[in-house]
Amino acid sequence: MNEKNDTQDMVVGLVGLGAMGKGVACNLLAKGFEVVGHDVRADLQGWIEAQGGAFAHSLAELGRRCRVVVSFVVNDAQTEAVLYGPDGLVGHLSPGSVFIACSTMPPAYVQRLGERLAADGIHLLDAPVTGGAAGAARGSLTVITAGEKAVFEQVRPVLEAFGANLYHLGERHGAGSQLKVINQLLCGVHLAAAGEALALAQRQGLPLDITHEVLCSGAAFSWMLGDRGPRMRDGRFGDITSAVDIFVKDLGLVLATARESKFAAPLASAAFNAFLAVSGEGRGAWDDSAVMCHYARQPYEGESPAPGQEARPS
Amino acid sequence: MNEKNDTQDMVVGLVGLGAMGKGVACNLLAKGFEVVGHDVRADLQGWIEAQGGAFAHSLAELGRRCRVVVSFVVNDAQTEAVLYGPDGLVGHLSPGSVFIACSTMPPAYVQRLGERLAADGIHLLDAPVTGGAAGAARGSLTVITAGEKAVFEQVRPVLEAFGANLYHLGERHGAGSQLKVINQLLCGVHLAAAGEALALAQRQGLPLDITHEVLCSGAAFSWMLGDRGPRMRDGRFGDITSAVDIFVKDLGLVLATARESKFAAPLASAAFNAFLAVSGEGRGAWDDSAVMCHYARQPYEGESPAPGQEARPS
Repeated sequence: MNEKNDTQDMVVGLVGLGAMGKGVACNLLAKGFEVVGHDVRADLQGWIEAQGGAFAHSLAELGRRCRVVVSFVVNDAQTEAVLYGPDGLVGHLSPGSVFIACSTMPPAYVQRLGERLAADGIHLLDAPVTGGAAGAARGSLTVITAGEKAVFEQVRPVLEAFGANLYHLGERHGAGSQLKVINQLLCGVHLAAAGEALALAQRQGLPLDITHEVLCSGAAFSWMLGDRGPRMRDGRFGDITSAVDIFVKDLGLVLATARESKFAAPLASAAFNAFLAVSGEGRGAWDDSAVMCHYARQPYEGESPAPGQEARPS
Repeated sequence: MNEKNDTQDMVVGLVGLGAMGKGVACNLLAKGFEVVGHDVRADLQGWIEAQGGAFAHSLAELGRRCRVVVSFVVNDAQTEAVLYGPDGLVGHLSPGSVFIACSTMPPAYVQRLGERLAADGIHLLDAPVTGGAAGAARGSLTVITAGEKAVFEQVRPVLEAFGANLYHLGERHGAGSQLKVINQLLCGVHLAAAGEALALAQRQGLPLDITHEVLCSGAAFSWMLGDRGPRMRDGRFGDITSAVDIFVKDLGLVLATARESKFAAPLASAAFNAFLAVSGEGRGAWDDSAVMCHYARQPYEGESPAPGQEARPS
């Protein structure tokens, strides 16, 4: 019996097989876990089977086969559908199961979700991640958890399979999501600030290569300036790591969360407006380094705006 | 004759013996230069003589003794006084001398200064620095120069005595100052952003120690968050590295410079307002990490505001 339990603990459900979920699936499989994946895109069955995993055609099937489910869907709406939608997970997971929520979601939603799942005997682990698709592929994500300590310890081997840095903030659900939101505040502000700085340098006729190098050499450095700065310097907004619209979403979440706390966040607000303006100009799918376009109208190689589309008075 | 010239080239005038100037003096002396210092504070004569340098009681004396002068005064007003004030340097420096301007100043002023000094046969090297008093003491400053390449090469040994990273942006005076201004834009925005993020975390009841560690571990990192964050986390606003009012000055310079270029800088503007508000509350001399106080009214150990001073309706 013990052996059977141990074996079942090695079965991990994985909902959401996008860029993040794929990397996590590969790392779980590499560490010896049996992975049962699910995605609304049924054509991903072939992909996960090729990696050595299984595909569940319904959430009901996944719920019956797994006691630990990791969720990498996009947001709270998709999480709600996965758990409480028609034939959702909640009716099929056995009591004592653990739902590990890795999506970036409103902290208040996550807090309430913990209470709702508890009513069905399901444990929630609030567990947003940072590190992006690259971190997911390498298994080097930072996982910021909150929830019962015993639950965290129980699923630690699962988290360690794809996370290099695990944090447990405490038992209050939503704390992990709060910290993720604050993380996105800084990422978004630093990225917009890099655009503001480099666009001003460009306006003043400074050589952007040396400018970027000098700014990275000292107190003006940020991870975002180092990572996205070269794309701004070269106008390579087609090298898409993460899109402008992701920051429209995340900074929108920052502002909504801050507002719930009656907290004015003027820098986050200014950064949000920069991303939103760039998205509104039709560049929402461009690389997020294109926030620089809010400050500088620089020609983008390959861009050919329709006549009258550019600089049209409103 | 050659030997005399070589010897005279080893004499460096140094105007401004504040925190920055002192560090630079020590590094010049350690590298074998003869240093003739000057400061409006005549009591610094004892200090520089104790280091092995000489003190000039007047700018006239300094101008007669040196062909290379390094200036570490506070701003453009002091630079103007040093050069063109009563008995200023310009009347006493011999043609061919080099004035190395290391202060943070408006780029337009520096550009014009190059033209004015040239009329008297004096070469200007636009040479603002980053790295702070600690960098000056260690001789590890970054020196961002602009001006004639031959002049830069001529004084390179002097710059190398206190600078670990030397950049030459080109021959256009003011370019170095422009880049320094942009450097300060990022430093100020990153510092205010760190305050905004940590104050929001505090408002939401997150543990600030883990929060700071998580934020520093990935894409949310900035040099300012790493350096000033711990003081924000602990409310140690009395550990003064650089004061709030320095950023009121520097971000003010950023906004004025941006305005001259008809460049809107909303993030710099929001950060400026945060520093200005904290200064307006009587905290201008506190460590610049106290910009966090704009977002969070947290008790500061040792602070005891006069009754009615706190939260007085305007």
